Amino acid sequence: MNPMTPARPAAQFKAPDFTALLSDRARRMNASAIREILKITQQPDIISFAGGLPAPELFPLEEVRQATNAALDRYGPAALQYSTTEGHPPLREWIGNRAGIPAANVQIVTGSQQGLDLLGKILISEGDTVLVEAPTYLGALQSFQPYGPSYVQMPTDDGGIDLDALEAILRTTPAKLLYAVPNFQNPTGRTLSAERRRRLVELTGQYGVLVIEDDPYGQLRFTGEAAPSLYELGLEYAGDVNANHVIYCSSFSKTLVPGLRDAWVQAAAPIISKLIQAKQGADLHTPTLNQMIVTELLDEVLPRQIERVRKAYGERAALMLGHIEEEFPGGVDFTRPEGGMFLWITLPGQIDSTKMLVRALTRNVAYVPGNPFFALGGGENTLRLSYSNATPEQIERGIKALGETIREALD
Amino acid sequence: MNPMTPARPAAQFKAPDFTALLSDRARRMNASAIREILKITQQPDIISFAGGLPAPELFPLEEVRQATNAALDRYGPAALQYSTTEGHPPLREWIGNRAGIPAANVQIVTGSQQGLDLLGKILISEGDTVLVEAPTYLGALQSFQPYGPSYVQMPTDDGGIDLDALEAILRTTPAKLLYAVPNFQNPTGRTLSAERRRRLVELTGQYGVLVIEDDPYGQLRFTGEAAPSLYELGLEYAGDVNANHVIYCSSFSKTLVPGLRDAWVQAAAPIISKLIQAKQGADLHTPTLNQMIVTELLDEVLPRQIERVRKAYGERAALMLGHIEEEFPGGVDFTRPEGGMFLWITLPGQIDSTKMLVRALTRNVAYVPGNPFFALGGGENTLRLSYSNATPEQIERGIKALGETIREALD
Repeated sequence: MNPMTPARPAAQFKAPDFTALLSDRARRMNASAIREILKITQQPDIISFAGGLPAPELFPLEEVRQATNAALDRYGPAALQYSTTEGHPPLREWIGNRAGIPAANVQIVTGSQQGLDLLGKILISEGDTVLVEAPTYLGALQSFQPYGPSYVQMPTDDGGIDLDALEAILRTTPAKLLYAVPNFQNPTGRTLSAERRRRLVELTGQYGVLVIEDDPYGQLRFTGEAAPSLYELGLEYAGDVNANHVIYCSSFSKTLVPGLRDAWVQAAAPIISKLIQAKQGADLHTPTLNQMIVTELLDEVLPRQIERVRKAYGERAALMLGHIEEEFPGGVDFTRPEGGMFLWITLPGQIDSTKMLVRALTRNVAYVPGNPFFALGGGENTLRLSYSNATPEQIERGIKALGETIREALD
Repeated sequence: MNPMTPARPAAQFKAPDFTALLSDRARRMNASAIREILKITQQPDIISFAGGLPAPELFPLEEVRQATNAALDRYGPAALQYSTTEGHPPLREWIGNRAGIPAANVQIVTGSQQGLDLLGKILISEGDTVLVEAPTYLGALQSFQPYGPSYVQMPTDDGGIDLDALEAILRTTPAKLLYAVPNFQNPTGRTLSAERRRRLVELTGQYGVLVIEDDPYGQLRFTGEAAPSLYELGLEYAGDVNANHVIYCSSFSKTLVPGLRDAWVQAAAPIISKLIQAKQGADLHTPTLNQMIVTELLDEVLPRQIERVRKAYGERAALMLGHIEEEFPGGVDFTRPEGGMFLWITLPGQIDSTKMLVRALTRNVAYVPGNPFFALGGGENTLRLSYSNATPEQIERGIKALGETIREALD
């Protein structure tokens, strides 16, 4: 049978109206603006600061190969069998130990993105107020969006979320959830100060607002001093791992490799127990072998790899900042990240970075316009640059080309 | 800082009411009845026919090891990098070719379970009518449940769904979606006859009802003749891959290994394009390396493996049926699967299989009671047996013990 050949009289057939059959939820989903931009910027001549890709030349390829062999030797067919929804016990144990919490408070997820999706699923009812940074991580908006949140934007400055503004919001707005990336935020590269962290945890605790702390980059600090995580401060505040109103997400994607999709969530028992139910319906469990591979890498490879990535990204950030200072005209503001993969450019107000992208592409350089990172719009004159996956030569040429583009746009 | 030490005056602190903060959606989720049963039955002395596990001794362990090495050699760091949401192009291409459809109509997912979850997410609005077999695959109910479906049960017999009953339902009930496992159904092992398949596709087409065909076991036929899939019949009916109202899900979990979580969905373009958006928010993409490993195994290992598994499961099913005929008392009905992993027992009406499980466990044998497989309840006197992961000796002893349990329950 050739399935492409019609076999019924055309008159009987009414083509399904797929669009009409979509759920209300699906109508809230949109194609990612970044995804569409990234497609354009993947032409070989383009120097792209657009993607948020870790540097592949730093990946511990041989170590992953050895870890795979070691996991298959150690576990045999069990490495390829179904496994528990909660995750590989030694991996949960290690993460729990590192955080000073029981393994029972750790849920393994298929990439941090799944952590955000499942948390949105179990927490956000239609119309619930979710507080997000302005700008915030676009992927979180994509995860939450189908669940029908009502966003309120928290103003930010170079120290992260403006806590006075947050307090004013909390006073007037009954919020369910606050989502934040406190370390080297995507997209701005900014870090929430230690002082503000304490106040954020206390305020949200007092107002009964849950906090999702998304921390994929925290280990990648190349300068300055680490502040305690919101999760740690939440533990201090609550005095009990199962009364902590902060939920913590992190990942091995930026420290080891992203392609294995190994990440985790730390949370109070009632949240974990719903997460398990949600994850069962979502994908049963994170791939067994992948969890075992990462577990093999924890003791020796992970710390070495973190040092390696820190050093490389620190050099690339410094290089990019140096060229920005030389090449960009006055009136352009930029962040000075202490870690992570991104920095954030604010152009003089009259320049629309989305329109400017066309000009940039003619000069063979690409970035992501800032506007899509704002849940409620704004930031038309902002843009995100990633330095993690660029050579020194690309950084030099690309920033020069971008400087020329900006000067041209200013004319 | 020791995060376990409380640092604030106890009086200020109000523990978060996590239960009150859950979404309406989360309230619809429940701990899987099976999951809880499986925990009990994992004691070492128990002969368990409860789990739906493929036989691990048949896993192509060395081939997976070699495929991993081959993928790392072939793709280098790209095997460990982020990759496209749609999936690894050569894998989509292969699946498309096999089905006689473009690769663009194939979406790779992290286990069939994710396919079901994402389809539920993009299709089911709260209150939408979803038609399911009675009994049906429990995991599908778990995936759909959070999205608030209103289930209607389709009566089934040994030939699968009762099509007269379905037509009567469609005449009176505006339904959005029909979910079915036409080959060697989980939990019953039954197969929908070729004739009924045609009528099902035509009826649903006429009534504008989308069909999700879940086919994890289709390749594992050990006797009888294969019927065309609903998807193929849908293509014939529509004459156009992008007007096919049947959506097809399948997986490499039962033919190769489950622990890599590689599966796929075939659907019309408008469904695929929403699936991509949903998957982006759900986990960005299925692990890169895992897709490449499976791709390496497609040409030589997969066909060999399918033969191997077919043969083994066919022998185990025959053995189990033989012992059932010998050991079970009269009045017990059972299905005779032509493939897959399960068979279905109907006890005399007065026996409650959930209550009987306690007695079975004292005889060191376990099964899954049938009731949880009914979306709207029923089947208290039914149970599911899996023969895929049991040795001949376990089958002999286990069925004997179960026969004794049933005789005891009849007294």
